Amino acid sequence: MMKETFFPDDPLRDFKDQSRSRMFILGLQSIFPIFQWGRDYNLTKFRGDFIAGLTIASLCIPQDIGYSKLANLSPQYGLYSSLVPPLIYAFMGSSRDIAIGPVAVVSLLLGSMLQDEIDPIENAADYRRLAFTATFFAGITQAALGFLRLGFLIDFLSHAAIVGFMGGAAITIALQQLKGFLGIKNFTKNSDIVSVMHSVWVSVHHGWNWQTILIGASFLVFLLFSKYIGKKNKKFFWVPAIAPLISVVLSTFFVYITRADKEGVQIVKHIKKGINPSSVNEIFFTGKYLGIGIKIGVVSGVIALTEAIAIGRTFASMKDYQLDGNREMVALGLMNVVGSMTSCYVATGSFSRSAVNFMAGCQTAVSNIVMSCVVLLTLELITPLFKYTPNAILASIIISAVIGLIDIEAALLIWKIDKFDFVACMGAFIGVVFASVEMGLLIAVSISFAKILLQVTRPRTVILGNIPRTTVYRNVQQYPKATKVPGTLIVRVDSAIYFSNSNYVKERILRRLMDEEEELKANYLPRIQFLLIEMSPVTDIDTSGIHALEELYRSLQKRGVQLVIANPGPVVMDKLHASKFTDLISDNYIFLTVADAVMTCAPKMLEEA
Amino acid sequence: MMKETFFPDDPLRDFKDQSRSRMFILGLQSIFPIFQWGRDYNLTKFRGDFIAGLTIASLCIPQDIGYSKLANLSPQYGLYSSLVPPLIYAFMGSSRDIAIGPVAVVSLLLGSMLQDEIDPIENAADYRRLAFTATFFAGITQAALGFLRLGFLIDFLSHAAIVGFMGGAAITIALQQLKGFLGIKNFTKNSDIVSVMHSVWVSVHHGWNWQTILIGASFLVFLLFSKYIGKKNKKFFWVPAIAPLISVVLSTFFVYITRADKEGVQIVKHIKKGINPSSVNEIFFTGKYLGIGIKIGVVSGVIALTEAIAIGRTFASMKDYQLDGNREMVALGLMNVVGSMTSCYVATGSFSRSAVNFMAGCQTAVSNIVMSCVVLLTLELITPLFKYTPNAILASIIISAVIGLIDIEAALLIWKIDKFDFVACMGAFIGVVFASVEMGLLIAVSISFAKILLQVTRPRTVILGNIPRTTVYRNVQQYPKATKVPGTLIVRVDSAIYFSNSNYVKERILRRLMDEEEELKANYLPRIQFLLIEMSPVTDIDTSGIHALEELYRSLQKRGVQLVIANPGPVVMDKLHASKFTDLISDNYIFLTVADAVMTCAPKMLEEA
Repeated sequence: MMKETFFPDDPLRDFKDQSRSRMFILGLQSIFPIFQWGRDYNLTKFRGDFIAGLTIASLCIPQDIGYSKLANLSPQYGLYSSLVPPLIYAFMGSSRDIAIGPVAVVSLLLGSMLQDEIDPIENAADYRRLAFTATFFAGITQAALGFLRLGFLIDFLSHAAIVGFMGGAAITIALQQLKGFLGIKNFTKNSDIVSVMHSVWVSVHHGWNWQTILIGASFLVFLLFSKYIGKKNKKFFWVPAIAPLISVVLSTFFVYITRADKEGVQIVKHIKKGINPSSVNEIFFTGKYLGIGIKIGVVSGVIALTEAIAIGRTFASMKDYQLDGNREMVALGLMNVVGSMTSCYVATGSFSRSAVNFMAGCQTAVSNIVMSCVVLLTLELITPLFKYTPNAILASIIISAVIGLIDIEAALLIWKIDKFDFVACMGAFIGVVFASVEMGLLIAVSISFAKILLQVTRPRTVILGNIPRTTVYRNVQQYPKATKVPGTLIVRVDSAIYFSNSNYVKERILRRLMDEEEELKANYLPRIQFLLIEMSPVTDIDTSGIHALEELYRSLQKRGVQLVIANPGPVVMDKLHASKFTDLISDNYIFLTVADAVMTCAPKMLEEA
Repeated sequence: MMKETFFPDDPLRDFKDQSRSRMFILGLQSIFPIFQWGRDYNLTKFRGDFIAGLTIASLCIPQDIGYSKLANLSPQYGLYSSLVPPLIYAFMGSSRDIAIGPVAVVSLLLGSMLQDEIDPIENAADYRRLAFTATFFAGITQAALGFLRLGFLIDFLSHAAIVGFMGGAAITIALQQLKGFLGIKNFTKNSDIVSVMHSVWVSVHHGWNWQTILIGASFLVFLLFSKYIGKKNKKFFWVPAIAPLISVVLSTFFVYITRADKEGVQIVKHIKKGINPSSVNEIFFTGKYLGIGIKIGVVSGVIALTEAIAIGRTFASMKDYQLDGNREMVALGLMNVVGSMTSCYVATGSFSRSAVNFMAGCQTAVSNIVMSCVVLLTLELITPLFKYTPNAILASIIISAVIGLIDIEAALLIWKIDKFDFVACMGAFIGVVFASVEMGLLIAVSISFAKILLQVTRPRTVILGNIPRTTVYRNVQQYPKATKVPGTLIVRVDSAIYFSNSNYVKERILRRLMDEEEELKANYLPRIQFLLIEMSPVTDIDTSGIHALEELYRSLQKRGVQLVIANPGPVVMDKLHASKFTDLISDNYIFLTVADAVMTCAPKMLEEA
């Protein structure tokens, strides 16, 4: 039972009956899967990984520079985060298709939570330190969840809530880009649609810069068109993948030639050259920012994890390999811990880059290593060239990237399948767009939890009837042919009976009996003498559940109705015995099947009649 | 579906098709049940209520004075809380047996949380104001839970956790009484057993007062003996009920005669005469204490509610009448709101006094009105007489009262039935005794929640086999006769498939398939060609669940195994259709019963073989 609950995947199965040295190698391989798949690695695989790595590198460089702005950090920190974390992941992770690095939603969330605490412009040094602190604890959180086998906790964010949250975040991110896209100087710090639109409106007469808009708009059209081509024909997947880099090169060249920056076109200005400096001493391990860092780290770590695991699972099921969620979390966590010490902020799996990685034919995590090398060369050699890159182009790249996060089809499907899920989806969406990222997240989590609570506290109880000329008893609402047995009410409880639902189950059964009795009375039919509970779906019962049964038994006795139990499972039966409930109701009223019970009860009814 | 979830009791059923005036009367009766049962009230019933009322009054007066000390309030506030709230409850409540007033555990909890914020001696006025504020918001919380039909939330405290919490609270309360019982002057403010024992030990040489111990011990023996008599013979239930009052009268008289207070025997000294003054203006509606008051109010309100509802349900099931939990919560809530405005602190149903009330033959809530009148007379006339009552006697009364909360039998039963429940029980117990009341409560709530989460995320999956010579398929672990069908793995999922468990279900099924394949390979048996999921216990599915099924289908296809669905319910079937999952798997692989599915799959296996 314990094993089934916490170790359903039996993680130590391979270690059984092995020699010491073999166990050491297995242990090493389980921490560093690269030692496992690395032995079968060959040139053919490397060819795929190399091409995929180059493709995602060309996509990630402009994205990284843009995303670091969402996190209110200087552009180089985005590139740093695409250098170290992918390397660590390549050694420890088990997904073959995920592309690691900074992502839009986590950057926005982190930036938005951090700037509530420290002003990123006035106090840039402390802001950066808090960002590393949050990254460190995000990593610790992720690794701890995996290590303690609590990975299932991230399943508590429902798919519907994630769809809404992602869509809302995408719109929020796109709106934020209006600042760079329109060249507005005084822009609101709030991320809700009302504040942003107000900023845009106020600045309409003097704040907009037409040169900026021209550059941004023309390249946005180019980027969206390249996306369209990639979507139309899968063979051209590389077109949208390299379009951003082309845009950056072209626009930078254009600005350099025309010196448009003197006309008010804002440019990146400066990216620090060189690879990641150490940031071990910058993490707050004491003081008032420690608690804040932990809080922000936990939230952003969990969201990053949710995204990475979802991506990992999607591609694992497409290529049909197993992904161990808990082990994956440890890998992602350690990657961020190391990242936080090497000037990176929270990195995770990127939806868009992983898809490109997959389509470009990646074979293993080596594509991440290739990407990492390209980023390294970029940092060492060509960062100065980004000086004249206009901010508008980064805005266009981000807009065209996040549009893919708005999944209208999924939302429509949710509407069709489950209205309650749709409420969760829209709640998260509206929360993000009209209030803040944190509020949307809170709404998403709350609605997800409410659904779980309702599921637990309100199990289904159905009335069974006999399918004529058989000994089969089925739900009368589902099988119109099923007929109720006269004088007997057969109720099936479709859940374990625990403290969380025992009172509901008891009251629901009594209410069903009362409804039935009213109906029978109205039709002058014989009254109910036996209430039969079909227990086969009741997988377990606890003390509260047994109390509820006892109370039910007593209430029924007072009404002259006999409680009968059919088909209790072995676990439930043991507990009914241990609690002496079987003595109370007497073994004569516990049966193996509903048919047995009905057969025994029917003659007794005749006697009384 | 919505109705089934939120209105399973169909609260408006009586209002259907009624005239306006009738609806008004019904509405009035549903808010004030006294107008309903009051019409059948007669002298015989009053006789029962009168005797019961006098009995519980004699029990409550000494208890109230003692309990107010637990809440760090002057003695009259305990009496006030036995005057107004029972009156309000008598008009609005629907339990016939509950006795309303201050109770030990809530007094301790309130006192312990309040003194963390304000010192009750140095700043008595603000402390009292915060107590009323907390009471006000306790009432608001209770009424809101009832009004919003969220009453089921209190079911989240499991029975086991409550048993442990109550036992721990009883021991903590008893230990606190050592101060009065031993006449110690410098006593710790902490409630954990280590601090208390340290206080007792430090004061052993100069702090103990032998006269106090003599009075306390002799009356404690008397009280426990009277309890023993009442337990031996139910006819003498009144002996333990009036023993406390007799003890108070005798000991007060004794101290007055001997002037033992001059020998260091601590006495009550002063109880304010007169009935409840208004405290409307004392409640903090603004300022820093508002938030604290709300927090303490919510916690103590929920605990008070849990106790009252548990009592109400117990006696309702003993006398077989229905108790509407949500309506009851509104009544208890409004009672505390009014109480907070009339100098009362949180009142609720008392276990010990309700039992006495029941045994003394109460018929309706009129016994509470009788009790209330006796308390009124006490406050108006005889409070000055309590001046010489020794504190030791109050300590003895409280000790003998709370001993009944330690339910060793229940704990043993929990151990026998469910080991996990026992952990919850002991966790709460140890938390209260060794740390603090709040810590015990936190442990109780956390463990209860953990159990729910595990229940939701880890549904059972079982392998089914055919019972020879029938078309019945049962769990092979439960029915050793059931034999697996060659080439087919039949798995039953015993829960709705939601986002919270969809990944687990998918991975568990795949794992079961892999285990099975390994076993078959080892025995040179034909491989699995069909994986059949028996869906009858799957009451519902959401988008995440359908995604998991799709992923499962794809993984199985890659392994050359066909997914087959048997007996999906109508709700599930609709959703499988809406999501086009039925197109993916094809309708040919969805069957009404497992037997149908096996019959169709068997020939196909022969073809291939």
